[in-house]
Amino acid sequence: MSTVTTDICIIGAGPVGLFAVFEAGLLKMKCHVVDALPQVGGQLSEIYPKKPIYDIPGFPSILAGDLIKNQMEQIAPFHPTFTLGERVEDLEKLEDGSFRLVTSEGTEILCKVVVIAGGLGSFEPRKPAIDNLANFEGGKGVNYMILDPEFYRDKRVVLAGGGDSALDWAIFLADVAKELTLVHRGTTFRGAPESAERVASLAEEGHMRLLLKSNVTEVHGNGKLDAVTLVPDGAEPYQIETDYFIPLFGLVPKLGPLENWGLELEKSAIVVNTVDYSTNIPGIYAIGDINTYPGKLKLILCGYHEAALMAQSAYSFIYPDKKFVLKYTTVNGVPTM
Amino acid sequence: MSTVTTDICIIGAGPVGLFAVFEAGLLKMKCHVVDALPQVGGQLSEIYPKKPIYDIPGFPSILAGDLIKNQMEQIAPFHPTFTLGERVEDLEKLEDGSFRLVTSEGTEILCKVVVIAGGLGSFEPRKPAIDNLANFEGGKGVNYMILDPEFYRDKRVVLAGGGDSALDWAIFLADVAKELTLVHRGTTFRGAPESAERVASLAEEGHMRLLLKSNVTEVHGNGKLDAVTLVPDGAEPYQIETDYFIPLFGLVPKLGPLENWGLELEKSAIVVNTVDYSTNIPGIYAIGDINTYPGKLKLILCGYHEAALMAQSAYSFIYPDKKFVLKYTTVNGVPTM
Ligand SMILES: Cc1cc2nc3c(=O)[nH]c(=O)nc-3n(C[C@H](O)[C@H](O)[C@H](O)COP(=O)(O)OP(=O)(O)OC[C@H]3O[C@@H](n4cnc5c(N)ncnc54)[C@H](O)[C@@H]3O)c2cc1C
Ligand SMILES: Cc1cc2nc3c(=O)[nH]c(=O)nc-3n(C[C@H](O)[C@H](O)[C@H](O)COP(=O)(O)OP(=O)(O)OC[C@H]3O[C@@H](n4cnc5c(N)ncnc54)[C@H](O)[C@@H]3O)c2cc1C
Repeated sequence: MSTVTTDICIIGAGPVGLFAVFEAGLLKMKCHVVDALPQVGGQLSEIYPKKPIYDIPGFPSILAGDLIKNQMEQIAPFHPTFTLGERVEDLEKLEDGSFRLVTSEGTEILCKVVVIAGGLGSFEPRKPAIDNLANFEGGKGVNYMILDPEFYRDKRVVLAGGGDSALDWAIFLADVAKELTLVHRGTTFRGAPESAERVASLAEEGHMRLLLKSNVTEVHGNGKLDAVTLVPDGAEPYQIETDYFIPLFGLVPKLGPLENWGLELEKSAIVVNTVDYSTNIPGIYAIGDINTYPGKLKLILCGYHEAALMAQSAYSFIYPDKKFVLKYTTVNGVPTM
Repeated sequence: MSTVTTDICIIGAGPVGLFAVFEAGLLKMKCHVVDALPQVGGQLSEIYPKKPIYDIPGFPSILAGDLIKNQMEQIAPFHPTFTLGERVEDLEKLEDGSFRLVTSEGTEILCKVVVIAGGLGSFEPRKPAIDNLANFEGGKGVNYMILDPEFYRDKRVVLAGGGDSALDWAIFLADVAKELTLVHRGTTFRGAPESAERVASLAEEGHMRLLLKSNVTEVHGNGKLDAVTLVPDGAEPYQIETDYFIPLFGLVPKLGPLENWGLELEKSAIVVNTVDYSTNIPGIYAIGDINTYPGKLKLILCGYHEAALMAQSAYSFIYPDKKFVLKYTTVNGVPTM
């Protein structure tokens, strides 16, 4: 458990959260960014990194992944810090008006302003319907995301899924795990054909086990996972021993913990005003896909504008006595921090 | 005099007006763009084309001129049409609810929606304080902008000014005019040193006359300019004969004709609401530097957002019966027109 102290804590490392770092940086406010995903970029990295976007002003076309790469370069002068792979669970307003946030892994963030750039919510793993699965979550053998593959070195691992992430991790872990099994309920994969072929040949060469037309239906163990039950289509169930079971069935965004922070909500979005994109709680702003106001469009370029106006207001919130003067970047350059 | 019929007439070809073409194009609305300047790009082309901007999202740095070039490429699929070098003077709402605009050169534009992206106003030439100067404007020998240099072939021309545009045009016209004089009240130029050197050598070689520490104080002629009076520092005035006198003392933005169109104004800006950036006159929108609302920042990226929301609303204004559904460019691509 660690504690981070910063001016602004930004929840969500999507394009809008990242641009908020830039606008805050122009005003010399330091940012810490938290995202539930193990990488930055929000929907652009998780859902469509290789697809072109056509409506980012000044780019006749840009791949979503490249836009995020450019934005990371744009904010580099401000040295933002990141906590990735952790979800912000709790938000508390302290007596002095500042905030204390706590993540799913217990990381504590102390800050003066909170900017929620949470998009459609934090991406949560789609979980298989297995009764006692939750008993093995949280370090007891069932994981839904692979943060650090080295963690699985010389372990027995059962992966499940039929998409790119199941295939990509199977290829990667074939070399790392002591014993690797990929379970898929179908016979063809949704992921890239090259990856499916690679997995098939790794299985043929004995570097991993590939079980098609099969489902994991039960998990077993005493406090710690030690086996899973497999059911092949039209055949008898059987058990295999394993240290880890990692279902990779995709991610779905869930508003999640934000719902309990006392923010005014409307249809799963946070109500803001358009003067500064502040919420009903002073010091908390909401920008990007997560907010709503009359005329709202869930577009990246709109979130950029919201970030700019938010930053001016956050500055006045943090420094009520300083007078704010808009300066052009062309004239004043970008300060370094 | 010509007439243009279009869906949307955009007044102002700055970055925001150009992006409005894009957002309108996504919804298949055709645009005609009018600007008082002879080139597109607004302040970016006129004031700082070679300077880097740092706060365009996704560009760690981009030259103002390049941003405009990119934006022209981005809107090319929609084939917008342009009237450049003409100022929109009159705006009239016709009985059927559509609009009729007329420019300084008498070009008539008929459209369903008007989008004012006029920045700080139309750039107007800074004029020297010479009493009867106005008598020779409008084709009678005094011009403030060079739209087509060929127009001055084999004519006698007096230019005045000490900046880049005086130097650049002097270099260009030395070859074209029958007799060229550049008058400058100082001894050093504000423009690029290379250009100043080139002008000096053109003068030495007899391709033009360079009069430093001098002012043009009077203009003469009977209905048509035929001479100007020059006063060298501390010396006697004298006249030289000329067909044209072109003071190039820079441009200053003036709100100008917009002020008389019945729009609600506040401190030289047009009041809009933030739902769709519409003005008090239905069918007229104002976006970019020209508008004002609580929280307004005069930034390029804010104008982009305003253009996006405006376009949705303009679509409903033109097609009240069609239901609008937001489509992602990544998913639907860019329609061609
Ligand atoms: C297929 C597709 C195509 C698209 N095409 C376009 C397009 O062409 N143009 C366009 O403008 N838009 C497009 N969009 C929409 C665009 O992706 C979104 O508008 C954009 O991603 C919103 O950015 P954001 O930063 O607000 O949120 P997001 O990108 O959604 O990022 C939010 C981040 O917040 C994190 N988060 C949320 N809650 C928490 C929490 N409690 N703790 C920690 N982290 C949390 C999430 O994990 C996520 O990473 C498209 C979307 C999709 C799905
Ligand atoms: C030196 C300098 C540095 C800057 N740096 C930055 C920066 O780093 N970041 C940033 O975001 N912004 C910056 N800006 C501000 C930025 O340039 C403006 O926000 C931007 O130009 C506004 O765009 P616009 O399209 O609204 O208007 P403009 O660029 O002003 O264009 C408006 C156009 O409308 C035309 N027009 C007006 N009225 C009429 C009429 N009646 N008929 C015909 N044409 C008309 C004008 O001739 C003009 O060409 C800077 C500005 C300056 C001067």
